[in-house]
Amino acid sequence: MFESLASIGIHLKNILGKAGRCLVVTDTHVWPLHGERLQRALQSVGWEPQVRAVDPGEESKSTQTLDDLYEWALSLEVERATAVLAFGGGVVGDLTGYFAATLLRGVPLVQVPTTLVAQVDSSTGGKTGINHPRGKNLIGAFYRPKLVLSDVSLLHTLSEDDWLSGLSETIKHALIADSGLFSDLSEDWADVLTRRSENLVDLVRRSASVKIRTVAQDEFESGIRMHLNFGHTFGHAIEQVAGYGVISHGRAVAAGMTAATFLSARYTDNLAVDTILEPLAALCPPEWRKLDAARIVEAMTNDKKRSDGRTRFVLLRQPGDAYVTADVDPRLVLESIHRAQQ
Amino acid sequence: MFESLASIGIHLKNILGKAGRCLVVTDTHVWPLHGERLQRALQSVGWEPQVRAVDPGEESKSTQTLDDLYEWALSLEVERATAVLAFGGGVVGDLTGYFAATLLRGVPLVQVPTTLVAQVDSSTGGKTGINHPRGKNLIGAFYRPKLVLSDVSLLHTLSEDDWLSGLSETIKHALIADSGLFSDLSEDWADVLTRRSENLVDLVRRSASVKIRTVAQDEFESGIRMHLNFGHTFGHAIEQVAGYGVISHGRAVAAGMTAATFLSARYTDNLAVDTILEPLAALCPPEWRKLDAARIVEAMTNDKKRSDGRTRFVLLRQPGDAYVTADVDPRLVLESIHRAQQ
Repeated sequence: MFESLASIGIHLKNILGKAGRCLVVTDTHVWPLHGERLQRALQSVGWEPQVRAVDPGEESKSTQTLDDLYEWALSLEVERATAVLAFGGGVVGDLTGYFAATLLRGVPLVQVPTTLVAQVDSSTGGKTGINHPRGKNLIGAFYRPKLVLSDVSLLHTLSEDDWLSGLSETIKHALIADSGLFSDLSEDWADVLTRRSENLVDLVRRSASVKIRTVAQDEFESGIRMHLNFGHTFGHAIEQVAGYGVISHGRAVAAGMTAATFLSARYTDNLAVDTILEPLAALCPPEWRKLDAARIVEAMTNDKKRSDGRTRFVLLRQPGDAYVTADVDPRLVLESIHRAQQ
Repeated sequence: MFESLASIGIHLKNILGKAGRCLVVTDTHVWPLHGERLQRALQSVGWEPQVRAVDPGEESKSTQTLDDLYEWALSLEVERATAVLAFGGGVVGDLTGYFAATLLRGVPLVQVPTTLVAQVDSSTGGKTGINHPRGKNLIGAFYRPKLVLSDVSLLHTLSEDDWLSGLSETIKHALIADSGLFSDLSEDWADVLTRRSENLVDLVRRSASVKIRTVAQDEFESGIRMHLNFGHTFGHAIEQVAGYGVISHGRAVAAGMTAATFLSARYTDNLAVDTILEPLAALCPPEWRKLDAARIVEAMTNDKKRSDGRTRFVLLRQPGDAYVTADVDPRLVLESIHRAQQ
């Protein structure tokens, strides 16, 4: 739900029956900015939050941080009914979600996403996990939150990079399943980029809805949910080749969607390539143009979305109409990266 | 299903569509005894098993062993469709189940239990997990196997302790939900103890059925599944006070069921205490009588099955009729341990 942070304590009470102790996992960037508001919202209706702030950034999605969280929680003698709140962006959400999924074989999870990426994408859908030296999100679980509460007012403190990252996922949802949203986003694009659009809450909410609808149709990612990976097969590889943390996930996906759009055009006549690429242009990270395209292709073959050793791609027929295929000419993959990098 | 190990390859093929590479996690005790039979059964129909044998015993349910398994599997470039087989007793099943649940957010899991405990109990029901220095099974997930194949012929190589441990869980299922099975087990008890009973396959299968039925009614352990913890609140505490590994899980549960039966008698008139205790007598480990009863009670308060800080107990009205209560006088808990230790 999109609502003010101030209502979190009451919603939590409605869902879990009564207030008591709860665990909050956040990061040391978010907590000084918004922690007091969360704490007040919880304490005002009787919650007793215990707070743990991890380091910001992808490095915290590690077995080491996870072990620290287990030790912390178990030293507090938590019970199966103890709620765990994830208060932060995608990293905090993924890490905390996996922590909640595996602590005592699962405790109630609440996502309170504080970034645009997390609000439109990562906080819903139940994907949780941590990284492994061999790749991102290789250890994880599907685990659904009891509640996702997104407060759009939190987004005004985001860095420019985090904002553009979030817009990448926002527009991705439009591209795979909602052509009307894609038109509305494109029309308002200059104001959306600068966060001044009057339609912001509406656009963000509609984008999140695409994610929620898609996941509801396919919880375990065997069919239509694959569409959400539009731009991601390229994007993950771009992140990896750049070195994790150099290019943000969302902006790597923007670059990935650009390449995927060129690839789509090779299999669909009359794809409106320019219309699609126009809003993406501002989101692509400049650094990615210098990356070795052959290495990106190589990294893609190690992506976990493979089946039978073949790399699967999400391509577009038109904005709002995506499909999955493993039947792609590897030379065209390389070519589409080259074209996108120009 | 209760069937010959020889059929595993075919069943696996039917479930997963086609044969290919698969991962087998076992231990260094089981593999030399039965590994060749499993390998032959798999290879004969086209499977290519990759085998990893962990050390036998509770110590392998650790984050360290788990990390080794992740590294092994990821170095083999496994995919989401790669099946993982757990070939061993409860430790291998719990560890491997959790490994499969969390590898790439979940890969297909097959349980091939080689102990009686695992065949009647731990291989079904979807509980997976590892231990934490603060207690057993504190990290884990609910994750259902695609297939459980139990071959009773494997049980003849079990140690006496493992056999008695398994009988403890076998009789537990009868006590909580199947009075007919309890009568049949009691009648045949002398021959069951020595593994000579002609009814062995039937009795084991019926005991496993109780577990499967109970779990099917309540996958996430919120209601009737609690009955399966009969003897376990005491049992876990007994294991912990004795020091993990000193007393086997099943035999600690036998001692726990003895205490729980005395406790039940304090709340139900005319409970057939002697009838219940008679088969349990041969299963209780002699060492447990020397343990400090007060320390057992203390350990019970740290058990994760608490809700609102109260310890919950599964008690009996009669053989085959269990119930859950948190409304128990702590003095009677201590008293029932004392009586059971005599």
